[in-house]
Amino acid sequence: MSRFFSKKYSSLTPYTPGEQPRDQRYIKLNTNESPFPPSSIAQQRAKEELDRLQLYSDPCCTALTAKAAQVLGIEEDEILFSNGSDEVLNFAFMAFCDESHPAIFPDITYGFYKVFARLNGIPYEEIPLKDDFTIAVKDYVNQNKTIFIANPNAPTGICLSLEQIEAIVKSNPNNVVVIDEAYVDFGGESAIPLTKTYDNLLVIQTFSKSRSMAGARLGFAVGCKALIQDLNTIKYSVNPYNVNRMTMAAGLGALEDADYFRANCQKIINNRTWTTEALQELGFTVLPSTANFVFAKNNAIPGKELYLKLKARGILVRHFATPRLTDFVRVTIGSAEQMSAFISRTKEILEEIK
Amino acid sequence: MSRFFSKKYSSLTPYTPGEQPRDQRYIKLNTNESPFPPSSIAQQRAKEELDRLQLYSDPCCTALTAKAAQVLGIEEDEILFSNGSDEVLNFAFMAFCDESHPAIFPDITYGFYKVFARLNGIPYEEIPLKDDFTIAVKDYVNQNKTIFIANPNAPTGICLSLEQIEAIVKSNPNNVVVIDEAYVDFGGESAIPLTKTYDNLLVIQTFSKSRSMAGARLGFAVGCKALIQDLNTIKYSVNPYNVNRMTMAAGLGALEDADYFRANCQKIINNRTWTTEALQELGFTVLPSTANFVFAKNNAIPGKELYLKLKARGILVRHFATPRLTDFVRVTIGSAEQMSAFISRTKEILEEIK
Repeated sequence: MSRFFSKKYSSLTPYTPGEQPRDQRYIKLNTNESPFPPSSIAQQRAKEELDRLQLYSDPCCTALTAKAAQVLGIEEDEILFSNGSDEVLNFAFMAFCDESHPAIFPDITYGFYKVFARLNGIPYEEIPLKDDFTIAVKDYVNQNKTIFIANPNAPTGICLSLEQIEAIVKSNPNNVVVIDEAYVDFGGESAIPLTKTYDNLLVIQTFSKSRSMAGARLGFAVGCKALIQDLNTIKYSVNPYNVNRMTMAAGLGALEDADYFRANCQKIINNRTWTTEALQELGFTVLPSTANFVFAKNNAIPGKELYLKLKARGILVRHFATPRLTDFVRVTIGSAEQMSAFISRTKEILEEIK
Repeated sequence: MSRFFSKKYSSLTPYTPGEQPRDQRYIKLNTNESPFPPSSIAQQRAKEELDRLQLYSDPCCTALTAKAAQVLGIEEDEILFSNGSDEVLNFAFMAFCDESHPAIFPDITYGFYKVFARLNGIPYEEIPLKDDFTIAVKDYVNQNKTIFIANPNAPTGICLSLEQIEAIVKSNPNNVVVIDEAYVDFGGESAIPLTKTYDNLLVIQTFSKSRSMAGARLGFAVGCKALIQDLNTIKYSVNPYNVNRMTMAAGLGALEDADYFRANCQKIINNRTWTTEALQELGFTVLPSTANFVFAKNNAIPGKELYLKLKARGILVRHFATPRLTDFVRVTIGSAEQMSAFISRTKEILEEIK
């Protein structure tokens, strides 16, 4: 730390990204990336931008916004794009939380919520998940606080129903409820249609997972016009040209290729189904996931040990050292070949330690 | 504005980007973009990323950082990349300003400094430029405030010498001095070498202008290791994957193609020289520019009228409605063809109103 660093931020604990080791080629099942490349249409559209990168990108994301509005069944002024969904999540913390609107979110969820709250000096409360790792809806009803819920939740993969989400949104009419749907395309039900009814609902999604664009950085928020206006006030005060030309074009291409998107989501769902069964056969407890990962534990081996032994065999999964999660590993659902390798190596490890 | 918007931000006046009309094809001399496409190496490297966008970008920008350190003659831990230089400018306001470290910058400069100060609730003072639109160095010496200077300044194009910059940096040892060198490659002298001597100097540059990558969004900050650490603490608390794969690769390619970079800068300098002379022949006062734009006025025609008449003839320049600037237009230096067209149309307009 320099002697100039503002006291306001000097005690920040930044977010820790998943490890990206470069010492060898791993089967990467640790950062919830898609095993599939982006749509060829997305690639083609990005390529067409390469010889005009000297021109600023469109701060309004006009073409992308029009297409997304059509695909999602919303108006063009009900959506805002960002440099990954992390950026618009931070905008939401800035816009809709303060001393008199503290934030609440589950104790076990996307680790960045806490970082954003601290960054912005926002009081926050973490609500413990139930023992079965589900969210207790009653804890979020009538709270008079700004609520952040990842649905499906991470790293559990468990989702709330649309009825449960609606109960939370409806009972907090004077506060914004942010539903972070990073993983919704793998079997969850999006709350976007509810934004027509509730002016306090903001839904956030990303192109990182289901549209294979983690490395392109594209996220978005959907809500009523006034909420999106507020987020735009923040955006135009932070970084108006936040989405670059290539990503904007790739996003448009990805939306145009609905078949590829649906087929890839279905493949992940299928691989998740048989991977879950194979893990259960090996004695694992697997939380019921509607995401592109599973969260699993086996009493025969601590989470950290399994993580290390898999890494030694060229497979990366994610282990969290926090007490309630330490028994588990989070395993991204990749291609059929990747998941076969993961199951084989896991079987070997379990036999070895018997 | 929604009824949920935090009072903290509800009075924000966001930055206004230059206009990007889509009603017809214009000769765009209004947003200081390069007239040249990015280096073919930059394009090729970005293209190679398209089929692996499903993987997150490297939050450390490892390869790009190594190359930049080599090109700039600094260490790898003395540089940080961002999603355009606006992002890292905001990080600098966050990290190095607060109630006890107010910001100061010229009254006439990049309009975003004021927006960032307000966004972050930072007290700030605007120091008037001298009548000749130069910065009075004495106003910035021994200030005990966090100083932001665009060098060359915008929209004047006028630069301070390295000796003047050093005098400012040296006399404010307990505060950070941020030198924003967005336009330095067109004839200014970079203060980057001074970062070896002064731990309170942060230099910010961009790939937008001289490397033809405005639409790719890539900026960076150079300073001593401790300053860069502080900016990284902010970055990893805001958006760790802030630079996407395509932009990162294009940036590397742009740095590899030093000849193309130098040749393009020289073309702009040449075009600026004869454009300035041609404007002077037409009765314009042209401020002495070391940037890729000129700031010029002609007593025969108000700035706004010239802007409108040029627009009607298919040429966009930028006019600022603020009192001290209203007589002027800011004209980006484009290709020889673009500047010839600009001079011809301007001549026509002046003859028409005689």
